[in-house]
Amino acid sequence: MKIELMTNILGDNDAAAQANQEFFDAHGILAVDFMGSPGSGKTSVLEQVVRSLDDVTIKVIEGDVATANDARRIEEAGAEAFQINTGGMCHLNAPMITRAVERISLAATDLLLIENVGNLVCPAAFKLGAHFRLVVSSVPEGDDKPEKYPVAFRDCDGVILNKIDLLPHLSFDVERFWDLCGQLQPQAVQFSTSCVTGEGIAQLCQWLRERHSKLVSG
Amino acid sequence: MKIELMTNILGDNDAAAQANQEFFDAHGILAVDFMGSPGSGKTSVLEQVVRSLDDVTIKVIEGDVATANDARRIEEAGAEAFQINTGGMCHLNAPMITRAVERISLAATDLLLIENVGNLVCPAAFKLGAHFRLVVSSVPEGDDKPEKYPVAFRDCDGVILNKIDLLPHLSFDVERFWDLCGQLQPQAVQFSTSCVTGEGIAQLCQWLRERHSKLVSG
Repeated sequence: MKIELMTNILGDNDAAAQANQEFFDAHGILAVDFMGSPGSGKTSVLEQVVRSLDDVTIKVIEGDVATANDARRIEEAGAEAFQINTGGMCHLNAPMITRAVERISLAATDLLLIENVGNLVCPAAFKLGAHFRLVVSSVPEGDDKPEKYPVAFRDCDGVILNKIDLLPHLSFDVERFWDLCGQLQPQAVQFSTSCVTGEGIAQLCQWLRERHSKLVSG
Repeated sequence: MKIELMTNILGDNDAAAQANQEFFDAHGILAVDFMGSPGSGKTSVLEQVVRSLDDVTIKVIEGDVATANDARRIEEAGAEAFQINTGGMCHLNAPMITRAVERISLAATDLLLIENVGNLVCPAAFKLGAHFRLVVSSVPEGDDKPEKYPVAFRDCDGVILNKIDLLPHLSFDVERFWDLCGQLQPQAVQFSTSCVTGEGIAQLCQWLRERHSKLVSG
């Protein structure tokens, strides 16, 4: 009974995710879902991307349990943001994205960046219809996180190792981290970023540009 | 329908949690549930407590999505540990604790420390039967976490601000953090710890000792 209900929820979600992706495809909008622990720096990475890609039209959907703090930060960085407060729910789902998309103007939008609720477990189970899913993992969390939270690192298209400016102050084995990531998802693209020094943001932005070009060129 | 099912799940869980707590009371075992984000340092704090309280009999239940890494670390620190792998589930629940308790020897045990799955959202909704719940939040996660994940910080008995040795390297407003904690749960006890320097561990251990004494003295 419980299993059946869960299957229904996931089935309904997958159908909505597919409809979302068809909408994004039809409008030439590259959608990317950013997942990660609380405090991994998802919003900071998005702020940096918004500031760097100032010739690209970006919209951002912010998912949080509470507050509109992150949407405010994104708007200050220069992109229109739509805040979803889940009111306790631990992840975004595809119908939430469908409703958000109905309420934001996506005319001439190139990139739709979606920040999921800070949680390394639950968001991985719910596809949103994004073309790519990136996991943001930060140096202070430790180099063992892929092994301990394997689903997110397996069901993703890329990993952003953030807060690399803190490497001198922490015991973190960079090689071990990427080895674990590679074992779980060999195809995932790898970025190393710092939102303090700006390192690695250009590579992430370049990747987003290329993916968008590829989408619109068919 | 969905709401009814959720109510049933929580009702069943609460009944099991109450039975767990009655068992702990009858055996003079103080049980404490440690919640927090992935990488907040829950295991490191428990290692420090186990090493410091070497005149107290401690057992540890480790909750993880995958791996037995944390149980191994605790056993190396000197306490018997029991690993629960949730296999994808994002929190522990009371029946998992009931089953674990049946399989570990709790004779002459003073403290049962339970490390929940790394997740600042879901574990808060599921009581385990512990006498106290402590949230471990770390400096690199940022001073805004209580505001953004209010349920865990409201439904707890104490907050451990961990990794305070990193304060010189990060922009973190300590006063703001504790103000937000105090607004959500004015009764919560506050600890500031570093598992690198050992700062604050003695205070946490003293609090655990006192709570255990109070429990066994009735």
